[in-house]
Amino acid sequence: MSFSPLVDRLLEALRVLPGVGPKTAQRMALHLLERDRDGGRRLAGVLAQALEEVGYCRRCRTLTEEDMCALCTSPRRDDGVLCVVESPADMLAIEDAGGYRGHYFVLHGHLSPLDGIGPEDIGLDQLDVRLDEGGVEEVILATNPTVEGEATAHYIAEQLRERGMRLSRLAYGVPMGGELEYVDGGTLSRAFNGRLPFRGE
Amino acid sequence: MSFSPLVDRLLEALRVLPGVGPKTAQRMALHLLERDRDGGRRLAGVLAQALEEVGYCRRCRTLTEEDMCALCTSPRRDDGVLCVVESPADMLAIEDAGGYRGHYFVLHGHLSPLDGIGPEDIGLDQLDVRLDEGGVEEVILATNPTVEGEATAHYIAEQLRERGMRLSRLAYGVPMGGELEYVDGGTLSRAFNGRLPFRGE
Ligand SMILES: [Zn+2]
Ligand SMILES: [Zn+2]
Repeated sequence: MSFSPLVDRLLEALRVLPGVGPKTAQRMALHLLERDRDGGRRLAGVLAQALEEVGYCRRCRTLTEEDMCALCTSPRRDDGVLCVVESPADMLAIEDAGGYRGHYFVLHGHLSPLDGIGPEDIGLDQLDVRLDEGGVEEVILATNPTVEGEATAHYIAEQLRERGMRLSRLAYGVPMGGELEYVDGGTLSRAFNGRLPFRGE
Repeated sequence: MSFSPLVDRLLEALRVLPGVGPKTAQRMALHLLERDRDGGRRLAGVLAQALEEVGYCRRCRTLTEEDMCALCTSPRRDDGVLCVVESPADMLAIEDAGGYRGHYFVLHGHLSPLDGIGPEDIGLDQLDVRLDEGGVEEVILATNPTVEGEATAHYIAEQLRERGMRLSRLAYGVPMGGELEYVDGGTLSRAFNGRLPFRGE
């Protein structure tokens, strides 16, 4: 039961948001209708505008409403390093972690032949154009540590081999702060294989 | 750091939703932009329409885009009982609990003289009109069990006294399934004062 057909449609529409079930949708709808109509109108307007205008950066394919994103045009990034990620969320996570000062290239997915997702669908033709610009000395293949992410990294590595630039992959290992007993077996065996000389300080 | 001014504005706008902090807003924005633009457009459209068209039912003041809500026009409700609640959310909670078959009247708040919220701001003039229709034999004052809710219930009771209809208030007590040690003192003492003869079955 709800109040009216239109409120029901609003409850339904709110459920496109990740993590929003019926109860949360109800709380959100009532909050906007009862307490913050201005905020709700702003949200509706900005959301419509963003869905209309936000596309991909011409150079790195991250989300932006501009021709080129702020990061691609920044003079303060290291032009010699390019980090290839599957999604803008991965790019944000790396930026939030801090430390990396190079550029990015966003695939918006990974190769998936069975789903008909090939090299051009993840922008690899654009990646070629990007690298033809010159200046990139190292490409970090930071696709997800999943079967599909690995396969995509290997495919890209193969394509880039003739360019002779340095290729790297994020280090695998046990996550910092984690307890060994909760780390999955695949991660643990990779951490063993990639073990480093112990440096006491 | 984010992607672009417009995406930043979207992250900001999403935070009008209750319970949505920076991380959740980012997950929502990326989900809509990367994976469900159609769902996002539908949400923007329905939200704008609801904020434009949803007002108060002429008879019970719940949220509806119609002149009168589905519940007020239903032939299957008990016309003799009217339950006064502070918000549409309270009305929904009572409906979800099941069992109540009467009608409602929604105040959209409570009396708060210090904030300049008087009887007309919570629709008490409309409540008079509603009761003038006749047929109501009992008014259940189901305002919140807070200081303001109590004061509002007492004020309304005073206003309705001359009408000679039955007035009631929800029973206070320990919540079902709760453990006594976690029940606050005020609730506990009210539960003692309102104790009932024990009926073994
Ligand atoms: Zn860019
Ligand atoms: Zn109504």
